Amino acid sequence: MPSKLNTQALPGFMELQPNDQIAFNKMLTTICSVYELFGFRPIETPMIERAEVLLAKGGGETEKQIYQFEKGDTRLALRFDLTVPLARYVAEHQNELVFPFKRYAFGKVFRGEKPQAGRFREFYQCDIDIIGRGNLDVSYDAEIPAIIATLFRQLGLEDFTIRINNRKILNGIFQELELSNVANDILRALDRVDKDGAKALNEEMDRLGLGKTQQEGVKTLLALKNASAQQIFAQLKLLQKNSTVLQEGITELEKVVNDMQLLGVDKEDYEIDLTIARGLDYYTGTIYETRLNKYPEIGSVCSGGRYDNLTSYYTKEQYPGVGISIGLTRLFDQLSKRGLIPSEQQTPTKVIVIPMTEDLTPSLNLAQSLRAEGISTEVQSSGNFKKRLKYAIDLNIPFVVFIGEEEIKKNIYTVKDMAKKEQKAMKLKALIKNIKSQ
Amino acid sequence: MPSKLNTQALPGFMELQPNDQIAFNKMLTTICSVYELFGFRPIETPMIERAEVLLAKGGGETEKQIYQFEKGDTRLALRFDLTVPLARYVAEHQNELVFPFKRYAFGKVFRGEKPQAGRFREFYQCDIDIIGRGNLDVSYDAEIPAIIATLFRQLGLEDFTIRINNRKILNGIFQELELSNVANDILRALDRVDKDGAKALNEEMDRLGLGKTQQEGVKTLLALKNASAQQIFAQLKLLQKNSTVLQEGITELEKVVNDMQLLGVDKEDYEIDLTIARGLDYYTGTIYETRLNKYPEIGSVCSGGRYDNLTSYYTKEQYPGVGISIGLTRLFDQLSKRGLIPSEQQTPTKVIVIPMTEDLTPSLNLAQSLRAEGISTEVQSSGNFKKRLKYAIDLNIPFVVFIGEEEIKKNIYTVKDMAKKEQKAMKLKALIKNIKSQ
Repeated sequence: MPSKLNTQALPGFMELQPNDQIAFNKMLTTICSVYELFGFRPIETPMIERAEVLLAKGGGETEKQIYQFEKGDTRLALRFDLTVPLARYVAEHQNELVFPFKRYAFGKVFRGEKPQAGRFREFYQCDIDIIGRGNLDVSYDAEIPAIIATLFRQLGLEDFTIRINNRKILNGIFQELELSNVANDILRALDRVDKDGAKALNEEMDRLGLGKTQQEGVKTLLALKNASAQQIFAQLKLLQKNSTVLQEGITELEKVVNDMQLLGVDKEDYEIDLTIARGLDYYTGTIYETRLNKYPEIGSVCSGGRYDNLTSYYTKEQYPGVGISIGLTRLFDQLSKRGLIPSEQQTPTKVIVIPMTEDLTPSLNLAQSLRAEGISTEVQSSGNFKKRLKYAIDLNIPFVVFIGEEEIKKNIYTVKDMAKKEQKAMKLKALIKNIKSQ
Repeated sequence: MPSKLNTQALPGFMELQPNDQIAFNKMLTTICSVYELFGFRPIETPMIERAEVLLAKGGGETEKQIYQFEKGDTRLALRFDLTVPLARYVAEHQNELVFPFKRYAFGKVFRGEKPQAGRFREFYQCDIDIIGRGNLDVSYDAEIPAIIATLFRQLGLEDFTIRINNRKILNGIFQELELSNVANDILRALDRVDKDGAKALNEEMDRLGLGKTQQEGVKTLLALKNASAQQIFAQLKLLQKNSTVLQEGITELEKVVNDMQLLGVDKEDYEIDLTIARGLDYYTGTIYETRLNKYPEIGSVCSGGRYDNLTSYYTKEQYPGVGISIGLTRLFDQLSKRGLIPSEQQTPTKVIVIPMTEDLTPSLNLAQSLRAEGISTEVQSSGNFKKRLKYAIDLNIPFVVFIGEEEIKKNIYTVKDMAKKEQKAMKLKALIKNIKSQ
C-alpha cells in the first residue's frame, strides 16, 4: 500500500450518508413528479460537451469556472448548467420535437468556484422549460408559479413566497424616466437594497447624477414592495405615459397574476416585487424568485423567467421560452444545516428475517414470499443472535421476524413490531396483512 | 453568430428523444425498486475524484481511458466505474456505516474509449454491493441471483440465463491438474471458446505444452456446460483430490445454488458454467453473468462476483464483498436496436384541456382540479383549434377535454377518449373517475 490516500470527497463535492441520501432522493423524486403532473417530459443530455458549444455565449465568470480538458484533438468541457445543453438539444432536434416543448431535466452540473461554505462545485439542478417554436403565448408564464407552489407544498416547505416581476416593466420605467443608459447600474443597486439598505441606493443614484423626479421614480419601485397587486398595477398605470414596453409589461404581468391564481396560487404564496431582475442580459419578460419565509438568508431557492430566444448561438430559428431551476444540492444542504432533514437512520427495508436454526430454508422462503408481495425484506443469518438483532435496530427497521424450531413446527412466524415493542405469533397471510397495513 | 457550431452530442454519448428517455427512466426506476425490495440503500458519490484515488490500483487499459484534468494544483479525474468510488467511500465512512453495508448506486461513468458501434464513453451503471466488515457470509452470494432474476422479470426480459461459477473451483482444478502457472492463458482461451470454437482452445493447450490428462481435465470444464447441477457437482467431487481450494469452491457453489433456489430462482433461470472467469485478478469466489437467451450476441448484461477485499488501496481494514453491475446505457441501446423499446410517443400527460372561448378561467380551474387529484394535465390555449388538437395527437395523450360556451353554461366537460375515439359530456366527478379508472 502506498502512503495513505486522501479518501475524503473533494471540497465542494457533496457526499451523503445513506439516510441523508434517501431524504435527498425523496426530494428529487417529489420535484420530478410535480414536473410530470404539469405535463413535462424528461430529457437528459451528456455531462460532457464540446467546449465551443458551452462557451458559445462566452465571457464572464462562468468561463473561468468551467472544467475543460482535451481528449484526442477535441476540446471538451463539463456542463455548468442545464440550459445551454437544452439550447443545443433543441437546435439539434428541432425537427423531431413536438412544440411547445415542455421538458424537465435534473442532473449534476459543474462549476470550479473557489470552495466556500454553502457553495458547491458539483451540484444538482432540477429544471423545467417550455419552449415555443417562433412564439410562445404568455399564458405559459402563469403555469410556472403554479408549479412552484405545488412543488414547495409537496416538499413540506409550505411557508414560501414567490416573487414575480417583468423585465419589460423595469425597462419601460427606465424609458419613462429617461434612465435606459444607466439601467444596469440602478438594477444592481436595487438588487442590493435587501443587503445594503436604501442608503447605498441613494448614494448610487447621486453618483449617477439622477434628478429628483428620476430618483423618486426609482424609489417607487422600492416603495411598492409590500403593496397589493391592485395598488401596484394602479401605480404602474400612472407611471405609464409613452413607453409601449411598459404597457406590454403591465399587460403581461396582469395576465400572469390573474391566471396563476386560477391555477391554484394563493394570495399568500406570491408577491409582485418590481426590484428583482435576475441577471442583466438573459431574461426578457416575466421573472420569478422563490424564498422560504423563515429563512430569507438562504436567498432564492427556485428562480427563472422568460427569454426571447433560447438557441441564438446554435440556429437561425427563434425559440422563445420560459423556465425555472432549483439548485437542489444547495437547498438540501441549507435545510440540512437547519435540522430540517430527518436525521434518524432510514432504509427501504420493512422486514428483517432472523433465522434461529441452522437450516435457512424457512427464512429464505419467507423472504421470497414477502418480496413477491412487494415488501422489502432482508435475511440476517450472519453473526450471533445479538448481532443480527442489532442490525435491525441500527437501521430502524420496523419489523423483525424470528424463525426458530417452534415456529417451523407450528408453521407460524414470531413478529416484533419494533416501534410498538409488541411481539406476536402469526401465520403468513396475517403477517403480510399486518405489514402492509402500516 | 459565429460559423455554425456542431450541435450533435459527442460521438459515444447517448442522447435520447423524450419518448425513449421515458422508457429509459422507467427501466432505471424498475432496477432501483428491485434493489430496494432486497433492502439496498442508495448512495451517490461525486463524478469527479482525485486522480490518485481513481488510479490507486493503476495500470491497464482503464488508465488510458480515464478523463483527467487539472484544477488549481489538484489532478482530477472522472470516475470510470462505481466500484472504486465505493471503495473510497467505505474506507472514509467505515465508522459511521452499518455493516453488512448493502448499497445500490446508479449514475454515469466515463471511459474515453475509441468510439465504435455499441460502445459508449459516457454510460450508466447500476450497481449493488454487499460489503462485510472483516468477513461476509457466503449466504449473501445467493441473494444476488435472486435479485437478477427478479430484476429481469420486472424489466419484461423473462428469457434470461444467469451463469454462475466460483473462482475457487477454477483455481482448484488448475491446482489438481498442476496448471496454476498457465491458469490465466487457459482461462482466456476457455473464455473465447464461445467465439473461436474448441479448436482454438486445443491449439492453445498444445502451445502451452499440456499433457493428455491435463488437456482432458480442462475439457471437462467445457464438457459440463450443458450438464445439470447434480452432474456437475458429482464430476467436480471426482476431480477433487488434494486441493482444499477446490473443496471450498464446491461447498460454496453448492450452498449458493441451493439457497438461491429457495429465494425464487427457477431451474430454467440459471446454469452452472465452469468456463466463466470475469477478468483475471479481481473476483475471488462466486461469479455471475447474465445473458438474454434470444440475443446471446449482446453478451453479458449483468455481471459481478465476490471479492476478498474492496478497500485494499485505501485502508488496512478488510472489507470483503459481493456485487453486480448493469451497464444500462448499453443494454438500452441494444434493446432499442432490436425494436424492443416502444417507439410511439410517450408523455406523462393524461389530459389536455382545450379552451374554446377567449376566457381561460374554466380551463385553468379544471387543470387545477385535475392536478389536485394527481392527474397530469396540460392546458393548450395557443394556436388555433386544429393546432391545439394536433398537440394532443402528436404526443399520444389519452384524453382531450373541450370547454366551449355550451359546456360552461351547463357546467359540464366534453371528454374525448382518444384511443376509443369516443366523445362524452360529463360532470367533474365523473370525469375524474373516468380518467382514474384507465
